[in-house]
Amino acid sequence: MRNYNETTITDAVLERVRNARTPRVRQISEALVRHLHSFVREVRPTQEEWEYGIDFLTRTGHTCDDNRQEFILLSDTLGVSMLLDAINHAMPRGATETTVLGPFFVQSAPERQNGDDISGGLEGDPLLVNGSVVTVDGLPVAGAIVDVWHSDNEGYYDVQQLDRIGHFAMRARFRTGADGSFHFWSIKPAPYPVPHDGPVGEMLAAQGRHPWRPALVHFKISAPGFEQLVTHVFLAGDRYLDSDVVFGVKDSLVRELILAPPRAQQNDALVNKGHYTLTYDFCLRRLTDTPLS
Amino acid sequence: MRNYNETTITDAVLERVRNARTPRVRQISEALVRHLHSFVREVRPTQEEWEYGIDFLTRTGHTCDDNRQEFILLSDTLGVSMLLDAINHAMPRGATETTVLGPFFVQSAPERQNGDDISGGLEGDPLLVNGSVVTVDGLPVAGAIVDVWHSDNEGYYDVQQLDRIGHFAMRARFRTGADGSFHFWSIKPAPYPVPHDGPVGEMLAAQGRHPWRPALVHFKISAPGFEQLVTHVFLAGDRYLDSDVVFGVKDSLVRELILAPPRAQQNDALVNKGHYTLTYDFCLRRLTDTPLS
Repeated sequence: MRNYNETTITDAVLERVRNARTPRVRQISEALVRHLHSFVREVRPTQEEWEYGIDFLTRTGHTCDDNRQEFILLSDTLGVSMLLDAINHAMPRGATETTVLGPFFVQSAPERQNGDDISGGLEGDPLLVNGSVVTVDGLPVAGAIVDVWHSDNEGYYDVQQLDRIGHFAMRARFRTGADGSFHFWSIKPAPYPVPHDGPVGEMLAAQGRHPWRPALVHFKISAPGFEQLVTHVFLAGDRYLDSDVVFGVKDSLVRELILAPPRAQQNDALVNKGHYTLTYDFCLRRLTDTPLS
Repeated sequence: MRNYNETTITDAVLERVRNARTPRVRQISEALVRHLHSFVREVRPTQEEWEYGIDFLTRTGHTCDDNRQEFILLSDTLGVSMLLDAINHAMPRGATETTVLGPFFVQSAPERQNGDDISGGLEGDPLLVNGSVVTVDGLPVAGAIVDVWHSDNEGYYDVQQLDRIGHFAMRARFRTGADGSFHFWSIKPAPYPVPHDGPVGEMLAAQGRHPWRPALVHFKISAPGFEQLVTHVFLAGDRYLDSDVVFGVKDSLVRELILAPPRAQQNDALVNKGHYTLTYDFCLRRLTDTPLS
């Protein structure tokens, strides 16, 4: 219980957490100590490197506020968030794959009607999104709540430029109709860098990595009796599909944009204009579905 | 470069840091990713546990300010600081062993003369500290700078009660005389809890651990040509010697307090009073000394 050296210190700390409040706290604490000590023993940090690490974590905490979560960004860029996604979302065959929520989701997105234009007047190439929500058996899910959000044509989200535009844009909440479908107008999103003016940006630069994510539209879909689906649809052909800084791309989530010529389209906000169309059918897992082993 | 699963995500992140700015950054990044992912794969956190972890780290960062370093406390209480000490301080035979700096060191401690009373008027049992600084060959080191600091008789440091006492106390900087010795008067320190009203305290409680360190006096000793020595002298018999919350106790650093009866003592601040005596001879490692392999 004294005189610990490089090898005995680990068992000493493990011994100290034996009386943890719950078996799960003990399990997590033991694993944390073992892996953290293994990391330190392998890397053998100098005193100065340890001080850098302490300072890096401190600055990462100080960068977090109501509008920014630098530790989630650290988790995302180190691949931890997608590892967690893989662990927790073993999907039944046929359900839509999941990916990260990302830092730009907002709880209070405005409710809109199918066919609305949610671009908020921002400039860009018109985009019609046609979606449907179905069960793994192909049955429509009526009344599902569909949150959507995406970047503008320069890669900025509305929450990054609220001072300038004054309102939410490219962000809305829809409900699916009796046939499980929803559709809306917006503008074509662009690739975007994750916030890289803080500690995570410093890490990415030191690691020789770019901060970019490919162009995508976020979806968060909920319906009673179904597991919530958090995913993106990526735009085919994007140059960052194979180097997404948060490792979030899955082939099943990539779709081609179809360029449609100008035509009359009734009951919709935009008519008689050439536009892109993005179509995706989202397949929800019932809460009672058995995951693939 | 897409479609990562629980096993392929790790190689994907490792591949991404191949072009790190320096080989050392690449080495540390690779080790961090491997050990962090191994931890996550072993523990298999739920989404809620991951969110707790993000929130814990965020609050730890927000607890850090100019007077408090919660991430150093986290490193200390998880045994990382003493592991680092073991890695970086392989001592030549005969040199004094090292331990953690701790969170209460202050750069600007007041310079005092040998024989001064540094208790700052705080109540407690009088303590005379007699020290010497020598080489591993037993030669005196004259003019060494000796920083000392310790808690009061209730376990509080001066910096925790500056509002009340208004000045530094139980804290000073001395220089050794021609014979390598120094001595000063103060009060007997008490065991003390590390700050436990923040995230680290929350962790200790969940792990079923107390937050206490045994009574000790901190020393930081520097002299040209010698490696700086950061250490404590612990008071023998303390009830927390075998359960120091930061794992810092080494037998070679424990000393018995000697109770001396009242007697006349010339040239010192306190005379004719019963007091405790703490004696320690600190042995510095020359910068050219070869560490033990």
